[in-house]
Amino acid sequence: MALPLPPNVSPETFRKALDAFAGVVGQEWVLSSDSDRNSYLDPFAPGNADEHASPAAIAPKSTAEVQAVVKIANQYRIALWPVSTGRNLAYGGAAPAMRGTVVLDLKRMKRILEINEELGYALVEPGVSFFDLHDALRERGDKLWISSPAPGWGSVVGNALEHGVGYTPYGVHADTICGMEIVLPDGDLVRTGMGAVQGSHEWQTFKLGYGPIWDGAFTQANFGVVTKMGVWLMPAPEGVANVVVSLASENDLGPLVDTLRPLRLNDTINATYTIVNPYRGVIDDARLKGEVRADIYKGAGALPKDVLARELAKRGKGQWSVNFNLFDARDAGLELRLAAVRAAFGKLPGARIDVLRWRQGEPRPSWARVDPGLFALGIVDWYGGPGGHMNFAPVCVPVGERVVQLYNLIQQRFIDHGLDCYLGMLNSGNRGLILNAVMFFNKNDADLTRRGRELYRALATETAPLGYGDYRAHISFMDEAADMYTFNRHALRRLNERVKDALDPNGILAPGKQGIWPRTLRPNRGGKA
Amino acid sequence: MALPLPPNVSPETFRKALDAFAGVVGQEWVLSSDSDRNSYLDPFAPGNADEHASPAAIAPKSTAEVQAVVKIANQYRIALWPVSTGRNLAYGGAAPAMRGTVVLDLKRMKRILEINEELGYALVEPGVSFFDLHDALRERGDKLWISSPAPGWGSVVGNALEHGVGYTPYGVHADTICGMEIVLPDGDLVRTGMGAVQGSHEWQTFKLGYGPIWDGAFTQANFGVVTKMGVWLMPAPEGVANVVVSLASENDLGPLVDTLRPLRLNDTINATYTIVNPYRGVIDDARLKGEVRADIYKGAGALPKDVLARELAKRGKGQWSVNFNLFDARDAGLELRLAAVRAAFGKLPGARIDVLRWRQGEPRPSWARVDPGLFALGIVDWYGGPGGHMNFAPVCVPVGERVVQLYNLIQQRFIDHGLDCYLGMLNSGNRGLILNAVMFFNKNDADLTRRGRELYRALATETAPLGYGDYRAHISFMDEAADMYTFNRHALRRLNERVKDALDPNGILAPGKQGIWPRTLRPNRGGKA
Repeated sequence: MALPLPPNVSPETFRKALDAFAGVVGQEWVLSSDSDRNSYLDPFAPGNADEHASPAAIAPKSTAEVQAVVKIANQYRIALWPVSTGRNLAYGGAAPAMRGTVVLDLKRMKRILEINEELGYALVEPGVSFFDLHDALRERGDKLWISSPAPGWGSVVGNALEHGVGYTPYGVHADTICGMEIVLPDGDLVRTGMGAVQGSHEWQTFKLGYGPIWDGAFTQANFGVVTKMGVWLMPAPEGVANVVVSLASENDLGPLVDTLRPLRLNDTINATYTIVNPYRGVIDDARLKGEVRADIYKGAGALPKDVLARELAKRGKGQWSVNFNLFDARDAGLELRLAAVRAAFGKLPGARIDVLRWRQGEPRPSWARVDPGLFALGIVDWYGGPGGHMNFAPVCVPVGERVVQLYNLIQQRFIDHGLDCYLGMLNSGNRGLILNAVMFFNKNDADLTRRGRELYRALATETAPLGYGDYRAHISFMDEAADMYTFNRHALRRLNERVKDALDPNGILAPGKQGIWPRTLRPNRGGKA
Repeated sequence: MALPLPPNVSPETFRKALDAFAGVVGQEWVLSSDSDRNSYLDPFAPGNADEHASPAAIAPKSTAEVQAVVKIANQYRIALWPVSTGRNLAYGGAAPAMRGTVVLDLKRMKRILEINEELGYALVEPGVSFFDLHDALRERGDKLWISSPAPGWGSVVGNALEHGVGYTPYGVHADTICGMEIVLPDGDLVRTGMGAVQGSHEWQTFKLGYGPIWDGAFTQANFGVVTKMGVWLMPAPEGVANVVVSLASENDLGPLVDTLRPLRLNDTINATYTIVNPYRGVIDDARLKGEVRADIYKGAGALPKDVLARELAKRGKGQWSVNFNLFDARDAGLELRLAAVRAAFGKLPGARIDVLRWRQGEPRPSWARVDPGLFALGIVDWYGGPGGHMNFAPVCVPVGERVVQLYNLIQQRFIDHGLDCYLGMLNSGNRGLILNAVMFFNKNDADLTRRGRELYRALATETAPLGYGDYRAHISFMDEAADMYTFNRHALRRLNERVKDALDPNGILAPGKQGIWPRTLRPNRGGKA
């Protein structure tokens, strides 16, 4: 296979650029062997991973090295794709949106620069994983708790930048960011918020700063390389509860959403909840037991309703369920929350409410979802494996009627495409809801994968005119997701592009990320169009 | 006095521009008489208000008119200074940073476009005041509560954009923003977040959107005119308490801050607290009783310590006090918060704790600070009036030792300049603290005003090298405040300027705001330098 080169760069120029990069990071951190290249391919590629192949990766160890690398990239017009730990699975892993982009791998920058227990924050480099931060906090006695996404090997910085979600009151990870250090595409170094004052002690404690608040604009973006980030951490609560509410009927989704909404709005439920649909109810339980699809059903097409009903009954599961944790600084306060939750769900006919409890001093249970693990990764082998998945995840108001309408549409299109509609509704903050519809596939089953891709396109095309937008996208669908944002003939895209061109005139940073292309590559979207 | 014209614009061109503006908004909304112009001068100008005079104001009634006005401004190179209700008192009122800038007065755009009680938000235009929104919510039965700054006549949009603070759990007003509609300096119209999807129902419920999060970058900025904004509103709590803790000794500041910090960090105290220093303790009480300084002390220089001590004793006040409200969805939960607060402050020797309570169903008391008023405005006549004030408000970590160090420095410089150090420490979010030092003056006392200005400059110059930055600034001091943000030779300013030039190449929007000057005016800061 030919070396995937950046657009308009000759092999000779590329070789010179690699030499220059080696002069900065050392030859051993210019990773350009075949096996290196393979290691940066998307392990969950929905199709041919080579569509997003990278010719090399560069792994700097410091901010100064990132600055030097970026300057060389400008000189030779080499596009760079920054990754923190490269675990952005289901969204491309470490692979770039545009084939030929060199991976800027920040894994060596893994210092925890500060943990401040008095003020509840950490200052970390991008290579710090949830495991790393968790372990550092554990060593200090767990006075502060992290909020981790399902698998914990990912980067604290990367996950927040990509708008990841965790299961504590600090679960909107983008909202926990307080202060960044950023290498701009031309190599300039900026600190946001109070970090813009030399010698600030306030960088991680006050988000607003003076003038424009920049942190948000550098998330899900390609305007700079974040080399340090402040993250707010939750002080250890006195009590935690896990609540699972199961509902018997297919028609219970609307009432469930409408029962959750006021409890979440007034912060009685003060962490992310996850609504689990019938397919997910079956599949999660089956995979936990090591079962795959063929153990349950051998027919073509999506699992039929009667099979779902049979499997749910067998496994003691309702058609719908919701799972969430409650946290409180006072155990007695937690009891008040629980009483309110029981009272509200007690009004839903046939609701079963299961509660687990933890109190300060007891070992922290796995259901608290604070100690990161890797379990969730096993799910992807549903079709027998080796599996992968991608997601279509539109945002919806948590209002029963609208959620049911959108859910029914998504479910029907999964059925039309012969795929099992594994779907979780992830609450984001007090008012947000993300319908995360997962398309599992087997990497060696081209037909299954093709149907998944077609399904993504069908859903994006059909739901955008109804007012929906995807909140995050796989590298293969970043443009399609951006296309959903139609207001005033894609005014948001124009804004993104104007800032992109101002900060990155040579277009060297992450072309195509979230559908933002630099001027030079815009006409044909980096060779895609 | 000569008409204050925009830089490099002849009277003839200016006249043509006004005619063109009149063609859009109607002649009656081109406000250019002498009395019009006077009405836009800063009522609290620390010195000669004419330094920030505007030649006219334009008052469009719709987003489309704003777009048209902005296009004309580009054509004639007329700088525009957008104001919502123009009540940005102590920071310039409605007056522009650069003399000659035309005020873009959005007061006619005062529609409350939506109040959503199910999801806890409103969508408002910039002319909507806290009073307006309060009244609309009251009509619907107060199911949602606003968070208002001290005087309630200001704009909900403007206050959030300027990083204003209120006294409820939603008190960091910039954090309550969810979705904006923005007219860019070239007239393009963008909606942020989910609003970028045509026909979105999710615009006010999910902050993240897809790609860069823009809302923050359009606060305290001059990159666009915000014409609609979503604001999150708190569901009515079941219980509210007001807590005032008074401390007897001058040396109690450090212990007070260190007692508050963990209670705020774990959200036991779940709204903004205000620490009141000895000067403010006296002055607030005196002004409430209609007294002015001369009623208490006739000497020159700052109020001496013995006078402060005498007046505090006479008024039954401690040297230091803190005032905050607690809110809870359950009255029993509020009792738990109160018990924790009493236990913590009970450990401070000599602390007096006063508590007031409100329960759902009772009339809402004024101390809840949810119903906006105008009382705070009377404070400014401390020196006899007609008064004004400006603020120096550096951000500090809520750590006793560092707060005491900064406070002592500020207090000493006030004394050096012969001014009473009226200071409140306003908590911002769970980790932030703003030391808001207020310089009162009389408008007709040139010496007092001059000393206030000198004091501002002295404080900014002296505290920046210690790592401090001002969080907001009067139009006369926006450059000085920006100068405090020194990291990497003012990298933040370079970033701001690059984005400014990309979005506003003709430099027509709010030149000099927060120290951000467009390319054309940068060399001499709009004639200032």
